[in-house]
Amino acid sequence: MAAPRCLAGFLAYETAKAVVVKSWVVGAVNRAVQLLILSYFVGWVFLHEKAYQVRDTAIESSVVTKVKGVGRYAGRVLDTADYVTPQQGTAVFVVVTKRILTENQVQGLCPESDPRYRCAADSDCGSSGRAAASGVLTGRCVSYNGTPGACEVRGWCPPEVDAVDAPVMLEAENFTLFVKNSVRFPLFGFEKANVPPGATAAELSRCRFHPARRPLCPILRLGDVARFAGQDFAALATAGGVVAIKIAWVCDLDRAWELCLPRYSFARLDAGARRSAASPGYNFRSAKYYRWPNGTEYRTLTKAFGIRFDVLVHGSAGKFGIVPTLINVVAAFASVGVGSVLCDLILLHFLKGAEHYKARKFEEVPEARLREPSAGPTALGGREMQSTDSGTGSLGL
Amino acid sequence: MAAPRCLAGFLAYETAKAVVVKSWVVGAVNRAVQLLILSYFVGWVFLHEKAYQVRDTAIESSVVTKVKGVGRYAGRVLDTADYVTPQQGTAVFVVVTKRILTENQVQGLCPESDPRYRCAADSDCGSSGRAAASGVLTGRCVSYNGTPGACEVRGWCPPEVDAVDAPVMLEAENFTLFVKNSVRFPLFGFEKANVPPGATAAELSRCRFHPARRPLCPILRLGDVARFAGQDFAALATAGGVVAIKIAWVCDLDRAWELCLPRYSFARLDAGARRSAASPGYNFRSAKYYRWPNGTEYRTLTKAFGIRFDVLVHGSAGKFGIVPTLINVVAAFASVGVGSVLCDLILLHFLKGAEHYKARKFEEVPEARLREPSAGPTALGGREMQSTDSGTGSLGL
Amino acid sequence: MAAPRCLAGFLAYETAKAVVVKSWVVGAVNRAVQLLILSYFVGWVFLHEKAYQVRDTAIESSVVTKVKGVGRYAGRVLDTADYVTPQQGTAVFVVVTKRILTENQVQGLCPESDPRYRCAADSDCGSSGRAAASGVLTGRCVSYNGTPGACEVRGWCPPEVDAVDAPVMLEAENFTLFVKNSVRFPLFGFEKANVPPGATAAELSRCRFHPARRPLCPILRLGDVARFAGQDFAALATAGGVVAIKIAWVCDLDRAWELCLPRYSFARLDAGARRSAASPGYNFRSAKYYRWPNGTEYRTLTKAFGIRFDVLVHGSAGKFGIVPTLINVVAAFASVGVGSVLCDLILLHFLKGAEHYKARKFEEVPEARLREPSAGPTALGGREMQSTDSGTGSLGL
Repeated sequence: MAAPRCLAGFLAYETAKAVVVKSWVVGAVNRAVQLLILSYFVGWVFLHEKAYQVRDTAIESSVVTKVKGVGRYAGRVLDTADYVTPQQGTAVFVVVTKRILTENQVQGLCPESDPRYRCAADSDCGSSGRAAASGVLTGRCVSYNGTPGACEVRGWCPPEVDAVDAPVMLEAENFTLFVKNSVRFPLFGFEKANVPPGATAAELSRCRFHPARRPLCPILRLGDVARFAGQDFAALATAGGVVAIKIAWVCDLDRAWELCLPRYSFARLDAGARRSAASPGYNFRSAKYYRWPNGTEYRTLTKAFGIRFDVLVHGSAGKFGIVPTLINVVAAFASVGVGSVLCDLILLHFLKGAEHYKARKFEEVPEARLREPSAGPTALGGREMQSTDSGTGSLGL
Repeated sequence: MAAPRCLAGFLAYETAKAVVVKSWVVGAVNRAVQLLILSYFVGWVFLHEKAYQVRDTAIESSVVTKVKGVGRYAGRVLDTADYVTPQQGTAVFVVVTKRILTENQVQGLCPESDPRYRCAADSDCGSSGRAAASGVLTGRCVSYNGTPGACEVRGWCPPEVDAVDAPVMLEAENFTLFVKNSVRFPLFGFEKANVPPGATAAELSRCRFHPARRPLCPILRLGDVARFAGQDFAALATAGGVVAIKIAWVCDLDRAWELCLPRYSFARLDAGARRSAASPGYNFRSAKYYRWPNGTEYRTLTKAFGIRFDVLVHGSAGKFGIVPTLINVVAAFASVGVGSVLCDLILLHFLKGAEHYKARKFEEVPEARLREPSAGPTALGGREMQSTDSGTGSLGL
Repeated sequence: MAAPRCLAGFLAYETAKAVVVKSWVVGAVNRAVQLLILSYFVGWVFLHEKAYQVRDTAIESSVVTKVKGVGRYAGRVLDTADYVTPQQGTAVFVVVTKRILTENQVQGLCPESDPRYRCAADSDCGSSGRAAASGVLTGRCVSYNGTPGACEVRGWCPPEVDAVDAPVMLEAENFTLFVKNSVRFPLFGFEKANVPPGATAAELSRCRFHPARRPLCPILRLGDVARFAGQDFAALATAGGVVAIKIAWVCDLDRAWELCLPRYSFARLDAGARRSAASPGYNFRSAKYYRWPNGTEYRTLTKAFGIRFDVLVHGSAGKFGIVPTLINVVAAFASVGVGSVLCDLILLHFLKGAEHYKARKFEEVPEARLREPSAGPTALGGREMQSTDSGTGSLGL
């Protein structure tokens, strides 16, 4: 008989004993709280946050960029191979809009151009071998531009003088940027590109991006990009700057393929740095190397100002999944119970007749003082006797 | 006597009163649901998802790439310095497989090559100063290749004609790519590289990656990479394309150091863009600048087609942690209780004798109509009197 | 009468019936466990993890770098345009510290320099057209440096010999790196830069980063960066390597704007690869192209060794939000209840008088054997009759 009995104990179902209070006040509060929690779960967790979906945030993205346009600069006509760098069409690239050139530099000796290295005698130029702005000091003070003296350096000569005014290629405002972005959500094997699939080359070459009128056109006018980022193009082209072109893919893959679309936004990334007086804008130095027929190398040093564009892609996709759905349904049911904490508080402390409810909700058990003889063979078997005790005590028979 | 009494109230332990139902049906359902929830936690949450581990997903990664191989192209032999760009061995690089060269370009005047700028008279060429495809229009219509006319432009002359057939360096299929990737999980101070630590230079130079036979060899044949990504190398080399080499590090640091290994996978990233007729493939323009002995600058414009490789590294590592273990054990215990919602539903609505169980589970309390005189000094002290009331009511004495 | 009655049922408030045990032991354990859980929530979840905040981890970052300094190398003086590549001031750049130059290479025929292609006769050189190290084999064995023979190749001649000692530009230790980093947390519209807003250009140019003394100075000495990463600069400059400059922005936006500050850390990224004997260090090959006056192209091949710096930015920001606060307060309350599992265990199994408590906590309900006549019109209406039964049974009247 032991086995079935043990099994009976194992299969006995234990459920909380409940007190049902016929109070309209607490009942209404309880239902209101339950409704609130339920609508939070249905409205926010399920409908807004789409908690029934599996999410993939590890977006795989490829960006290819192409800038088109020709501009006049300093008596020359420049094309994309001249003013875009690096030229591989990567996600980060610079459109050079201003250049300070120092041509025909060769290795040699010349006076330093930096005003901090003005001198009257050799002793002002410190020890030989120390690094100056454009070369290594020789320790000699030599005449510079007719003025008495500047320290002599060994390096690329003549040194750069960057305190000059250079023209700005404002025509870059009308250049166009074609952004090819294709993304993949590896978890779902879903892939899509920002170029509309039905578009022909002719259609594409005509359209220009506009957030309201042409939000899907992948060709952007540089002047528009600056404007959408809240910047003045001329100021940006003069001092240089960094502008982000952000492409967001937030896709609900339970809906149609056509509804998963990119959303473009724009921001100036170096705005914080610009506010600081110390180093506004964006520029860099590069050099092109040439050789005279006799083999001597010379170079053209360029201090290039320009707009750096960073194409940043982020996104996430969701698709119905049984596991997150189950978890959240369970969580919702469990949370509905939390409302009773508030209701108990009202019922037992603030309601008229709180004592009355308290007495019915709580059943006091005094500490067991001495080990009573076991009332029955099983733990639950002892109930009758205890009840009798309790009955006797409370009824006072 | 007040302090101990207050303390007694504070230390009184309140636990839910339970009804134990000796029904095999509900009991069995209850245990089954509990088993289900428990096995979900043990099997999925603990064993599969490793919820007892602290996870670090902020992987720090460094990629250095090196392409080797020589190929014949247009009567010349090209090496890695010629066909790889940029040359710094970064994670994103291009192997150029086809080039359309326009040599000896100088700044000057010449007829536009783009068919859209054919003309019969100056009036067809619009106003002077407008930008055309390869330069700025002068407003004149001049003869072009013997045909009556094309609009004249100022810019780099002669202009590029890219509608020509150029050879493809198919030998790039046999070039090899050495990927050096080392990763670090900063949270655990764990670091590892994809190059097997015991490998000698000779062993490394001989091996070639294969997903099944040599999954850890860090040297990949470019033709294999294309094939693993499901692409035809010749087509890729002709039109250009973007291919991802993905390295995943998913490591369980509770296991041995040797078992944390990279896993390689491959995908074409611009596949979506390729499907669109508008702009298939991948190409970019760059220029090399030269000077005649008299100082005049000239350049060679290159329209380069090639395969861009993006080495993408992602990963995460987990290690036993006491905090996540505790949290999940508690969550598991709490969740086991959720099963009772289902069982209560069965017990109180669908089971034979539901009314019988309902009557024992629920205890009705009528609304408190009038404020009764306080039965005792503490809240719980009132219990006996209320019980008497109730007893009287229900027993009908 | 049906409608109000149905409403009454709907508004009836159901709360768990509780047993209050006046046991100091269990009460103390209960309060202790509750205190533990509560202090975990208050201390860890709320104060340490700031669970009351909405978090934004999608940091938008822009990095502009600028290296300054001149160094002597192989009889020349090099500046930033010479030794930094790429020159656009991106987050990843190389400072070249050692160069093996192969000058005046032209396309032609020459003996292979690689020792694996030594030969005694044409038959040792395999079939014509096969790729060797620096070109394509012609199938002929020719004399090389006076020694009997090396296989002849077609390609850039003369081939590179990289087993030579080249000097190292150790002066790079004193070069400075200016890192301009501005970040944006798009969720909160918060933006900040690493350059202190009040700093003047003069102040900035003087300061040098030091983790303890000048933790906010954005100008770093290259030698210091190597040292902070635990590396020897001379060794790094000789063999090359990859060093990460990590900038962490962990911001509590509930506090003052001034308190959101960058934290710099440094690590060698290719340390794992370095341990492997196969391919230590970091180097790459690039070429500069020139033309003779007659139009023939020649190039200078450079095998460049250097330190690649990767500026990695990561961060997260938090700000008070009502939704996460509510969720976590509810979770805290719900979790406090979990402590009762432990207390029930003690109460019902390990405490003196466990049987006594068990009998009061559990109320046994036998299985409903036959369908009893419905005792009242509503489910709850049947309570009295059941209670009477129970009362009769338990009181044994």
